[in-house]
Amino acid sequence: MAHGDAKISPFAPKSLPDVPVIEGVRFAAAEAGIKYKNRKDLMIAVMDPGTTAAGVLTQSKTCSAPVLYCRESLKSGKARVLVVNSGNSNAFTGKKGREAVQMTAEFAAKATGAPMNEIYLASTGVIGEPLEAGKFAHLLDGLAKSARADAWHDTARAIMTTDTYPKLATRKARIGGVEVTVNGFCKGAGMIAPDMATMLCFVFTDAAVGAAPLQDIVKSGADKSFNCMTVDGDTSTSDTLLMFATGAAARRGQIPVTAVGDPALAEFRAAVHDLLRELAIMVAKDGEGASKFVTINIEGAENDRAARVIGLSIANSPLVKTAIAGGDPNWGRIVMAVGKAGEAADRDLLSIWFGGRIVADKGMRADSYDEKTFAEYFKGREIEIRVDVGTGGNGRATIWTCDLTHDYVSINADYRS
Amino acid sequence: MAHGDAKISPFAPKSLPDVPVIEGVRFAAAEAGIKYKNRKDLMIAVMDPGTTAAGVLTQSKTCSAPVLYCRESLKSGKARVLVVNSGNSNAFTGKKGREAVQMTAEFAAKATGAPMNEIYLASTGVIGEPLEAGKFAHLLDGLAKSARADAWHDTARAIMTTDTYPKLATRKARIGGVEVTVNGFCKGAGMIAPDMATMLCFVFTDAAVGAAPLQDIVKSGADKSFNCMTVDGDTSTSDTLLMFATGAAARRGQIPVTAVGDPALAEFRAAVHDLLRELAIMVAKDGEGASKFVTINIEGAENDRAARVIGLSIANSPLVKTAIAGGDPNWGRIVMAVGKAGEAADRDLLSIWFGGRIVADKGMRADSYDEKTFAEYFKGREIEIRVDVGTGGNGRATIWTCDLTHDYVSINADYRS
Repeated sequence: MAHGDAKISPFAPKSLPDVPVIEGVRFAAAEAGIKYKNRKDLMIAVMDPGTTAAGVLTQSKTCSAPVLYCRESLKSGKARVLVVNSGNSNAFTGKKGREAVQMTAEFAAKATGAPMNEIYLASTGVIGEPLEAGKFAHLLDGLAKSARADAWHDTARAIMTTDTYPKLATRKARIGGVEVTVNGFCKGAGMIAPDMATMLCFVFTDAAVGAAPLQDIVKSGADKSFNCMTVDGDTSTSDTLLMFATGAAARRGQIPVTAVGDPALAEFRAAVHDLLRELAIMVAKDGEGASKFVTINIEGAENDRAARVIGLSIANSPLVKTAIAGGDPNWGRIVMAVGKAGEAADRDLLSIWFGGRIVADKGMRADSYDEKTFAEYFKGREIEIRVDVGTGGNGRATIWTCDLTHDYVSINADYRS
Repeated sequence: MAHGDAKISPFAPKSLPDVPVIEGVRFAAAEAGIKYKNRKDLMIAVMDPGTTAAGVLTQSKTCSAPVLYCRESLKSGKARVLVVNSGNSNAFTGKKGREAVQMTAEFAAKATGAPMNEIYLASTGVIGEPLEAGKFAHLLDGLAKSARADAWHDTARAIMTTDTYPKLATRKARIGGVEVTVNGFCKGAGMIAPDMATMLCFVFTDAAVGAAPLQDIVKSGADKSFNCMTVDGDTSTSDTLLMFATGAAARRGQIPVTAVGDPALAEFRAAVHDLLRELAIMVAKDGEGASKFVTINIEGAENDRAARVIGLSIANSPLVKTAIAGGDPNWGRIVMAVGKAGEAADRDLLSIWFGGRIVADKGMRADSYDEKTFAEYFKGREIEIRVDVGTGGNGRATIWTCDLTHDYVSINADYRS
């Protein structure tokens, strides 16, 4: 939803990055008027035959109709078309929702000649309103014909809802000496506590990579990016992260890789993970009403899973988030959030640092503690919190989040009005 | 913390109830100046020898020093003294915290002649500041001597922090034909998502009941009262619910009951549970910044535990809470919160009612849905949400909470300033 009076995130980039084209995929976007006026709200990506697909989807028990459709298509491991609309999530729409998905896929198939199980659909916006596919499905034919390799900016904008800026990133990597490109874009600002992925994220590459290793790379990347990020602890019904590999780099000599764990993919894997992390951080920085960006580093947990649970407990605590909004270095609330997480922690060995300076040292306020120093640090836009939870274990996690401000309440107290 | 500019909860009672005395217990409160000025912040309850004790304490891994002390004392099953201070929670205070607890208990023992393991201590307020017991422990002797059976109001006020009103309730019940009285008071407004009990709640009775059946009654009562209530999903380091039975009713002919499950306790048990529910609801109604009180009834879950998890997921969702604050009947967010809870739910059989009127019917917006009717309902102070999660199971739960308002953010963005 476009909030006429909503503030732009202080972290909004001055301009969008110019990303290179990815051979084998073309984009187009249009104003379908699904909910917003004078704004592109429908996009298509058309991919060459042979494109492989991988993805992770929300684990919500009330997931949307398009999520169920993608879950089926992913079984093919292939992709030809992606259609995304904003303004309506087609979630909790029952039989009408399934019909809207079917109709959209049929129009997309007709427009491109793609098989039904190589089509991917995503919808984002209000929950529970019937999505009238008849109002936009006829546009898909024209969009498919006009799709261009360089339409990244328009496309990234078309999937936005409460986002205050488009989120687009690019990476290069070598596979067996051949350079490949990875571009991705995503959206999300509220209802963000991804269980598998954030609301919507799409990544494209020209690499020739089989669906199995692609899935492995996407899954492990999501676990260390979108699954370590939260705005408000509310998990969307529509979370979708999809990655498509057109394989065009094979024409430039890249030997296709089809085995999971093939060392030829090491650099590519690292590049994809780095890109996912950049996109996840962009979402946290555009969190609804966010005035500060917060990085939480947990160490000394029993294992990485426990560290993530503790980090998310801190990141989702309304008391921690409001303290940060108020510029209050209220470390007692961090102690509280560690305690309530339910994972092992040793109260008497627990230590906390803000911006690298020790605050609490093995179960007590540090002797060097100086409130003024930390109050000054908390005036900044970017806050780093480090916690050793004291079990002596090697578990670590990094979590990204934002603060909880008056603007979050304002945005969400009248989202639908 | 007293917020000079904080609004009084719209649910604050016009006056405090007059509660009857409980034979065998006397109270006194004083201004110790621990943090607040011109306000009573220290209380003592002195109980007759033979008083039995039961209680549940926070399951936080970073629990406070007084919580650890109470855990030990509860092993005796007996009680002579309760000392509570507000303004400082003596949590995460390490060795100094243990010393403060020890010193307080020693002064209380000296003032009353009570054994150390029949003393109970509770502290509430800021986390991580050393509690200087030397500043108030000397007051305990005078307080013990001046304690009176009718000082309930002063005592209930002395334990308040961000509370905007004291929370005090009373019940009568018969055990074997003899009438007994149960009085209780509690505090709590923020950092409220009790894992065992709310921040602080103390219940007194003149009934002659052994520690074992008392513990059984307290534990089961907490599960259906404080453990079904949330303000902000943040579990305190200090949650303490203690109940003391002086046994004075034995002098009026009540035959002491010592067996768990003795049917003679049925009415008493119901009265205690009812009192705990009233107190828990008072806490939700005084939630920090609360403008609306919300009751969430879950049915059709796999079991009662699953129903409680789903209800708390709705009650703790910032998006649900801000929608309610804005008077927006945004049922899509309730669908989201059911979905993220992780418990079984059938999306296509899920139904929702607001104030008894159907909103969503078996997986879709109800045909009779009328936005205006519900918008009108959401202007009210008290909102009732009913959800059938559609598994066909018998699991039910009732959860109480409040909305998330600008005032919550204001209160917590400057709690310590």
